Formats: sequence, structure tokens, C-alpha cells
Amino acid sequence: MGRYIFGVDVGGTSVKMGLFDAGGMVVDKWEIPTRTENGGENILPDIAESINRKIEEKQYQKEEVAGIGIAVPGPVNGAGVVNKAVNLGWDVTPVKEIIERLCGVPAQVGNDANVAALGEMWKGGGQGYTSLVLVTLGTGIGGGVIVDGRLVTGADGAGGEIGHMHVMDDEQEACNCGCRGCLEQYGSATGIVRLARKVLERTEEPSVLRDTEVTAKAVFDAVKAGDRTAIAVAEEFGEILGKGFAMIASVLNPAAFVVGGGVSKAGEILFEYIRPAFEKYAFPGSKDAKFVLATLGNDAGIYGSAKLVLDAAI
Amino acid sequence: MGRYIFGVDVGGTSVKMGLFDAGGMVVDKWEIPTRTENGGENILPDIAESINRKIEEKQYQKEEVAGIGIAVPGPVNGAGVVNKAVNLGWDVTPVKEIIERLCGVPAQVGNDANVAALGEMWKGGGQGYTSLVLVTLGTGIGGGVIVDGRLVTGADGAGGEIGHMHVMDDEQEACNCGCRGCLEQYGSATGIVRLARKVLERTEEPSVLRDTEVTAKAVFDAVKAGDRTAIAVAEEFGEILGKGFAMIASVLNPAAFVVGGGVSKAGEILFEYIRPAFEKYAFPGSKDAKFVLATLGNDAGIYGSAKLVLDAAI
Repeated sequence: MGRYIFGVDVGGTSVKMGLFDAGGMVVDKWEIPTRTENGGENILPDIAESINRKIEEKQYQKEEVAGIGIAVPGPVNGAGVVNKAVNLGWDVTPVKEIIERLCGVPAQVGNDANVAALGEMWKGGGQGYTSLVLVTLGTGIGGGVIVDGRLVTGADGAGGEIGHMHVMDDEQEACNCGCRGCLEQYGSATGIVRLARKVLERTEEPSVLRDTEVTAKAVFDAVKAGDRTAIAVAEEFGEILGKGFAMIASVLNPAAFVVGGGVSKAGEILFEYIRPAFEKYAFPGSKDAKFVLATLGNDAGIYGSAKLVLDAAI
Repeated sequence: MGRYIFGVDVGGTSVKMGLFDAGGMVVDKWEIPTRTENGGENILPDIAESINRKIEEKQYQKEEVAGIGIAVPGPVNGAGVVNKAVNLGWDVTPVKEIIERLCGVPAQVGNDANVAALGEMWKGGGQGYTSLVLVTLGTGIGGGVIVDGRLVTGADGAGGEIGHMHVMDDEQEACNCGCRGCLEQYGSATGIVRLARKVLERTEEPSVLRDTEVTAKAVFDAVKAGDRTAIAVAEEFGEILGKGFAMIASVLNPAAFVVGGGVSKAGEILFEYIRPAFEKYAFPGSKDAKFVLATLGNDAGIYGSAKLVLDAAI
């Protein structure tokens, strides 16, 4: 097997790229813009050109490159075909085939949230666990499920879509997916802001949140400062997220939940609110799950896609 | 590898045993009683004696036996140790080690609900699917999760405990597990009876259910006869079960749900009530899951445990 691996994470505004050795050490890291115009037709050629240029620059032989891993924001089937990626402008796109043709190197493709889970298991907060669920609390909620060291991609590439797990029966507002009561409506950065607005409306209690822009960060900063209104928001957040984690645990009994995304910057304090609800709702045999923070941040995707290549070579 | 496999399913009153060839054809099938007295100390010696006698009777050499698979009603770790099985009277019991010592043949051990899923995938209603969830609607609700052809046993042997997934927030009565609002409280045979009693109490409408013993079978027989009260019960059952299936689908995106257990004898009519709720609650990308009936009945455990042996040999 070749000694070098490219890990690529395709986002809506930029493509993150990493060059790794087989041990997972970063040799080089850079970004290129994502050109989404014209149905995103330039994205894959741009990536291929950047990789080919890097190979030339490093004076590698093609045989020295084990492969290219690519994380994309959309469902991916077993043949490396993406079934629409709205943020990239893509319709059905055979990513694996195109990259292999343009670069002359084997390619592996995965969904970005799933691939991030693989990255966190390999080099991040999930190290030491072979059975884990990555929960990414960002603008929405993404997820990635790993069982016995392998990604659970699902029959239609929709494995780990835990942001759209139904967790509340009496919700009136609709989620982006069209359903009502999805986990994402409460636990994402936007969900926390929504919860905070509701709590602020239903009380008159003074709160620093009344004088600042309400963001997930502002809420947890206020929690740390002892703000009672913010604490009430964190309790609702924790109650619902803990319930959702318990539902996942009853299906999978994972060894660990790895929590990442922008909201996770609040740190371990999140678990003080999530864990009590988790323990209330979880099946007794599943209660030992560990809660850990993701550590790779925005690099989880490039690590994970490099790991896709290593796993495919086994 | 040996040509013959024993599949054993240890229940609270009897132990089902099957002798299979490597293609999964049944060569012989029999039962022995489960002697649960004295902490169930006789159960494994009884099984070993019965297997050893069968090997002698068939005049097999030990080398001709590929292995013994054993399904037990309790959590099983990767070393084949059962961590308590209340129905058998067992405390922590190293099943694999004991059977291998007494029979001189390799043994594989799995949780009975999980192993049944493997059986249904191999020779039952789940044939053709490599990613499925078996939902066993019996006295309680058991489950087994298969991803890419492999069992998801969980970090502590509690994978697939979907009967204890939280699905209702406003439940007042407690489940056997101590939580409130578990799937089992609505979708099991006892859960259906509970739902029926509630519906009968809150209406005055005439119903055949008022004149017979209320059982899950009686409810679905009445549904088939057009009884409006029974239909109301089936609608509540379907609403909650469909919601639970949707939660599972958002985590795993399985290709199929295989429904077994005593309640499944009602047949395809169950799906008429489960599917609409599933489609209402499921993430769009997971909605293509098929609903099929289990076909092996009480033999799922012996088939599945035989398959454990075949899978371990790969």
C-alpha cells in the first residue's frame, strides 16, 4: 500500500484538504474555495487539480499514494455515488468514479457527519472506543454511528441522521425536514436559541440574556456565570438531548457518545445537563455509556476521510 | 470446518435444540426441559449431555461438528459470558467456556433476541436483507439489530433493547424496567391489552371486546371484523410503534423491519397501522424501509445460533 493518503472534506464554502502518512500524521493541510455555481460542476475538478498539483510538488509517485478519502454533505451509497448534495448544488454525482478518473488513485467517499465520527474515533475524542456515536451540535445536529470500528452508513446512506429523531410530541413548529419534534429543534445552536427565546418570554426574571444577542455561546457563558434563566434553558436542552441519547442507547448500547460541533465549545458543562436526563430515560443495561468531547474540530472530516482509505485497504 | 452445527435456544421452560448441516438444513430437532432450580446449575450440563448423546447416536466424529451456538435470555459479552439471566436463575455464567469444556467443540453464545434476528436474516422473513431490525412483539418487546450482516450486540450486551426505548412522555405507569413510557408498554401483547382496557374504559361504545377475554389476538381478530373500538386500539398501537420504528430508522436507516413474536400472528394487518405513523415521524431519507413478517416462529433462536457458529468460522 502507498505511504500517503489524502483526506478531503467538502463544505459549502471551502474544501478542507489534508495529506497524511499511513500513521495518521499530518504532512500538509490546506483549503480551496468551493465553487458551487453551475450545479457545482467545478468542485470535483478543482479538488482533483489541487491533489494532482500537491503530488507533483511533493515529487511523489502515484503508487506512493494509497488513496483519496472524500467527505461530502449528502447521502452516499456503497459505490461512492452521492444522491444529491443541496449545499454543493449537486444532483446525483458519482464522486468516487470522477475522482479516480481525474487523479488515477483509488477514492473512498462518505457522508461528512459519518466520516467525522470515524475521524474522532481514530485521532480525536473517541480514541479507545470501537463503538460510539458522534453527535455534532452545530447549526443543525449531525451524527455518525460506529459499531465494532465500522461506520453504519445505512441502507440509503441515511444512517446516523439523529438530528431528525422524534423526541417531542407536543411541538407546534416544524423542523427543516418537515416533521415536528426533531432533536435538532432543541439541541442544535439554533435550537438552543429557540429554547432561550421561549424561556425569556415566559418569565420576567432578570437575565444577562436580555441584554445580549442570544446565541448558544451566550447561553452557556451565562450558565457558567450562574444566570438562572440561562440555567433553565440548559435544563430543557439537557432534558431533551439526554432523552434522545437514551433512545439511541436502547438501540445500539454504544460505549461512548462523542459530542462535537460549535455548541460543544461550551465544554464538559453540557454533560452536567445531558447526563441526568440520559440516566432517567436509559435502559439500565445501557447506562454505562461515557460522554466525551470531540477534539478535532473542523479537522474531523479530513482525518475521517483519510481513515476511510485505510479501512478500505484492510 | 466440520459439516454439522448445533443450534441451541435456552428458554425459561424448555431448551430448543437443532442439528443443522452447513447449508442450514435441519438434520434433527428436539427439546429438553430447562431445570432452573438451584440457580440453574443443571442447565448447561443437561445441554452438553444431550448434544454429546446426539453426536454418539449419529456416529459423528467430534471433528465433523463445526460448533455449538447458544442463545440465552440475558446480556452476553464478547467472551461468551452471560451477565445474569433472571429467567434461568443464573448469576454471571461463562457459558462458552463451560460448553466447550463439556462437549469438546467450539461454542458461540449470543443474546436470544439478537440471535433470533440473525436467524430471520439467514432463513426467515429477513432473507435478502443485510441491514435489518427484528422487533419481537411477545409478552415484552425484544429486538435484534443487524448491520452489514453482523449483529450489533452493544458495548455491554444491551444492543437492540428497543422494548425499553422511551416513546411517550406523559405515561404514569412504570414499565418492568422502572422507566415510564417504554415502547414495550404499548406494543407488546401485554401492552396491547393495557391499551384496550383504557379505550374500553373511556368509551361506552359496544364492542366484542366487552364480552371476551381481552388479548392481543382478540383485539386484532376484532379489528379484522370491523369492530370500531378494536380499531381505535390498533390505531394507538400503530401510532406508538410506528413512532418507535421511525426513531430506530433515524439512527440506523435499516433496509427492513422484521416483525415477529406472538402479536405478529395477526399478520400484515399490523403494518396497516404501523406504517402511516412510521411515515409521519421518519426522516425522509429513511422512509424506504420495508416491513416484513418473521417466519421462523420459535425456531428463530436455533437457526440464529447455528448461524453464529458459521459467522465465527469466517
